[in-house]
Amino acid sequence: MKFGGTSLADVKCIRHVASHIKREWTAGQDLAVIVSAMGGETNRLVALTAACGGNPDPAEYDVVVASGEQVTAGLLAMVLQGMGVPARSWAGRQVPIQTSGDHARARIEDIDVTPIKDGWARKEVSIIPGFQGFSPQGRLTTLGRGGSDTSAVAVAAALNAPCDIYTDVEGVFTTDPRVVPEARKLDRITYEEMLELAAQGAKVLQTRSVELALANNVPLQVRLSFADPAHAPQGTIVCDEDEIVEQQRVSGIAFSQDEAKITLLGVADEPGIAGKILGALADASVNVDMIVQNVSEDGRVTDFTFTVGKADLERAVGAIESAQDRVSYRELMSESGVAKISVVGIGMRAHAGVARTMFDALATAGINIQVISTSEIKISVLIDARETERAVKALHSAYGLDQA
Amino acid sequence: MKFGGTSLADVKCIRHVASHIKREWTAGQDLAVIVSAMGGETNRLVALTAACGGNPDPAEYDVVVASGEQVTAGLLAMVLQGMGVPARSWAGRQVPIQTSGDHARARIEDIDVTPIKDGWARKEVSIIPGFQGFSPQGRLTTLGRGGSDTSAVAVAAALNAPCDIYTDVEGVFTTDPRVVPEARKLDRITYEEMLELAAQGAKVLQTRSVELALANNVPLQVRLSFADPAHAPQGTIVCDEDEIVEQQRVSGIAFSQDEAKITLLGVADEPGIAGKILGALADASVNVDMIVQNVSEDGRVTDFTFTVGKADLERAVGAIESAQDRVSYRELMSESGVAKISVVGIGMRAHAGVARTMFDALATAGINIQVISTSEIKISVLIDARETERAVKALHSAYGLDQA
Repeated sequence: MKFGGTSLADVKCIRHVASHIKREWTAGQDLAVIVSAMGGETNRLVALTAACGGNPDPAEYDVVVASGEQVTAGLLAMVLQGMGVPARSWAGRQVPIQTSGDHARARIEDIDVTPIKDGWARKEVSIIPGFQGFSPQGRLTTLGRGGSDTSAVAVAAALNAPCDIYTDVEGVFTTDPRVVPEARKLDRITYEEMLELAAQGAKVLQTRSVELALANNVPLQVRLSFADPAHAPQGTIVCDEDEIVEQQRVSGIAFSQDEAKITLLGVADEPGIAGKILGALADASVNVDMIVQNVSEDGRVTDFTFTVGKADLERAVGAIESAQDRVSYRELMSESGVAKISVVGIGMRAHAGVARTMFDALATAGINIQVISTSEIKISVLIDARETERAVKALHSAYGLDQA
Repeated sequence: MKFGGTSLADVKCIRHVASHIKREWTAGQDLAVIVSAMGGETNRLVALTAACGGNPDPAEYDVVVASGEQVTAGLLAMVLQGMGVPARSWAGRQVPIQTSGDHARARIEDIDVTPIKDGWARKEVSIIPGFQGFSPQGRLTTLGRGGSDTSAVAVAAALNAPCDIYTDVEGVFTTDPRVVPEARKLDRITYEEMLELAAQGAKVLQTRSVELALANNVPLQVRLSFADPAHAPQGTIVCDEDEIVEQQRVSGIAFSQDEAKITLLGVADEPGIAGKILGALADASVNVDMIVQNVSEDGRVTDFTFTVGKADLERAVGAIESAQDRVSYRELMSESGVAKISVVGIGMRAHAGVARTMFDALATAGINIQVISTSEIKISVLIDARETERAVKALHSAYGLDQA
């Protein structure tokens, strides 16, 4: 079980979570529980590190920001004990959760679950702070923001157990219900689709955790924390394709407004030019998402368009401008008022016409497509950010995802 | 060096502390720095544990409350690095600081300072969260409230180094300057006097840390954190008696209003009765401070008076009432509106008349003494709490402690 920060926002929430754990424990389940920090706490700690210096030592950053999960782990163990449920907290180094030495973005390398299983033999619930592990040098590490999902899936994989992710929504929806009230909760979704939805902006699960679940075949369920237990709705099960009977062409629609677009006009159309542009960006640690290079009409100059995260826009422009000795162009245009809309569905591999439905629906709504990018189970388009809501609604309806 | 919570209350304070460390480091000092949690943070964490259950598991309590020092240690290391001073934080288990397994009140048993000395060889400042260590079972432990002073003295003893305690006052005063404006800062005070002052209510140092400094002969200095470095006043040096040239009869006056008094009237005057009363209180984990048993006039019944911490009053009364099968008495009277005033001075061993000066001064001020208790270098009296300020002022003047 993994509980997120909104599920552990205060002592009342922690008691609610403990009651749920007690029910499962009373029913005879062996439980390992991964916890996030109290809602808002990690932001507070990150802000403290930011106030302490522009470029903090990631090892010390980890010491500071990992403390939030340590607090909730101890508090939850206390509350469980008070309810008569044997419980103890295990710090990352105690389990142990061995990671790489890449502070602030460490990878889990090995988990020894012996102490957790020993605890189960004593009917003890193990509480593990998410997000943290320790390095080969014996120092505390963190897995990067949202890393508690990854901790949970990794512990579940090591225990050969299913993983329930408890959160503040009922499950995975066809799109964000705050934007499209007709959005439906999905009963099942494949790992691959969940991965694309997470990568394209759906915030329900961290991308790395889904990759890890896919790689280790961990049965994953996304569930609501605060449901009335007597009428607890089923969440969304993330599973293999063959466990889903009726496959939709499109399972969900994700969107992200954290995008920015850069266009280089009049780029010399010569072999290796794309590599030079992307190399300059990679050197500046800018991740590029969508890339379009127009066919040049005269065979001499062309236009080159790509998207980056909005937070990286300034760095990306700087990187291109200072690479003018290698990359020549006539003009650089940048724009941050763009949104990426993605339709995702494993069924689109077998069904023709999925792309056409998308383009038709957007055209009917009078929404202009700026850039297109596709993968085997996903089509993404870049549009004016002000059209986000209308686009998502039009697509949700066009693919028949609206609730009956 | 040890910095308390008010010296680390926010990022601005942490920067100030770092500037001071940098000056000492630049001057060629090898430094280990012990830090408290940000002011108020430990109270916040303790309140969270209290809200999570009436009788929390002390092992989980430690996991939660030790996190505050972890945060300041990481932040201070970051700020120092940003100033060009090599620094790293060491958790209790990393140093390691080995303690007993008594969670929430662990005793330090062994400190291996090799990593700190290795750091010095690299010109690195070691930052160590105070208050924490780890148990023989490998779990995080804490030393009890105010334990960061004890951490600092223990690390200094292991390093065979002097220990500077930086705090929000200029040093140790003859009494609290907020009560007596004429109070003087002491240039030197003996370990024994500091111990009595701390035990009798002066809040400048934790009692255990002074005991540890005395036992290991650690030179201790109490200093102001926020002084202008160019005109930094000397603090108070806590040292052996033979290092003090002019010994006063009385060095300081401490007071505490956290006291309560219980009187048992009509107690059977028989051998072992005091042991039975104190045994009942010890069974309820109530610490008794002052004890007075009157001489009985008729040889059959007597009165028995003792004081306890105000927070323990209810538990103490309950313990006596439920021990009526062993302890018979006519009536129990309890009062929490009392204060304990103590005059402390190693010189009183050699000077007669110190007690008489005290009683005369209080009588002249019309203040009634309820209970008296003495040790070799201390006289304490219990009075009406409303007379505290007048009593302390009268005694401060009577012993010639007022500033010239």
